[in-house]
Amino acid sequence: MEKRISESVIRRLPIYHRYLTELIDDRIERISSSELSKLTGFTASQIRQDLNNFGGFGQQGYGYNTQALRDQIDKILGIDKVYTAVLIGVGHLGTAIASYQGFSDSGFTLKALFDTGEKVGSEVDGMEIKPYKELENYLEKNPIDIGIVAVPKEVAQDVIDRLLKHGIKGIWNFAPLDITTDKAVVENVRLKDSLLTLGYYLKNK
Amino acid sequence: MEKRISESVIRRLPIYHRYLTELIDDRIERISSSELSKLTGFTASQIRQDLNNFGGFGQQGYGYNTQALRDQIDKILGIDKVYTAVLIGVGHLGTAIASYQGFSDSGFTLKALFDTGEKVGSEVDGMEIKPYKELENYLEKNPIDIGIVAVPKEVAQDVIDRLLKHGIKGIWNFAPLDITTDKAVVENVRLKDSLLTLGYYLKNK
Repeated sequence: MEKRISESVIRRLPIYHRYLTELIDDRIERISSSELSKLTGFTASQIRQDLNNFGGFGQQGYGYNTQALRDQIDKILGIDKVYTAVLIGVGHLGTAIASYQGFSDSGFTLKALFDTGEKVGSEVDGMEIKPYKELENYLEKNPIDIGIVAVPKEVAQDVIDRLLKHGIKGIWNFAPLDITTDKAVVENVRLKDSLLTLGYYLKNK
Repeated sequence: MEKRISESVIRRLPIYHRYLTELIDDRIERISSSELSKLTGFTASQIRQDLNNFGGFGQQGYGYNTQALRDQIDKILGIDKVYTAVLIGVGHLGTAIASYQGFSDSGFTLKALFDTGEKVGSEVDGMEIKPYKELENYLEKNPIDIGIVAVPKEVAQDVIDRLLKHGIKGIWNFAPLDITTDKAVVENVRLKDSLLTLGYYLKNK
């Protein structure tokens, strides 16, 4: 990628991806920026500007070829690559993540689950939960790209430190703490922030 | 609120809220914008600008009183209000949400759970799962502010239609579909978008 793409554009790509997938599933072969605008709620000019970042696949009077555009977005998003993952913390949320179908659709393969106590040895979708104390040994022996952190806040920093120590490249973090590191890419999912935002709009609507 | 506050400011408020809560828990009574900058990663000038939106509680050379500032943000976010909620779809994700502690901390009270099939009658944290077919009847008889949608995509639209029909004010949506309505405030949690963004940064780092 020669040009630096802004984070707000990157954040819209999965949205385009989702709609294009629906259009392809419905056997719709092309779409104009104004039709995409109706679907996504972004303005047509915003859409053209966003997609021009990646080479401008739209043709005047024809629009975008849905399959070609999605293939290109797949490539930009790296869905054509496969990343390996481990998940630490197999509570309700961790179990939901482990059994999450969108995971493999997005180019990620879950390789191992870790937890402590009674959960060790039980299975989620046929995958056995390993003891957390074996995490570092596992990371030394297996090439793992990302760590998914679904543990309580109190232990999250310890988990993150261990992951970073073993050269993990990315962290998908569900714990309510901020990770500051330049050693790995971090993507936070903040349920509470989302809920507080909902509360704000409920109050101020 | 006389002044319209931009969505990006609103999205940063929960982050300030989180750090201020940690500072208060650590008995730190005041903090400067530059210290807040180190914690949050936002620039000090961004922070002053954001907080000025709400009346500017900082004092030159003193900084912000952590408790007073968080109380103010609580008020802006509406955490001092209590909202009632129902949750539809008690799979792994729904169970995680139902047992989520941040829920009550954020001013929400979960009143009922709904699902279909075998799950009906079983309990999550002492709350019994009701049959989905009773949802509308329940909404008619009970004052409910928000609906939490944690069902598969195929049935999400039906759930949302029923919620909106009964005057629900807000939807916290975990299903991978976009809700366009001006009848309610909608907050989407898009796990797949988050994962695709992580994939992008892994590839392009």
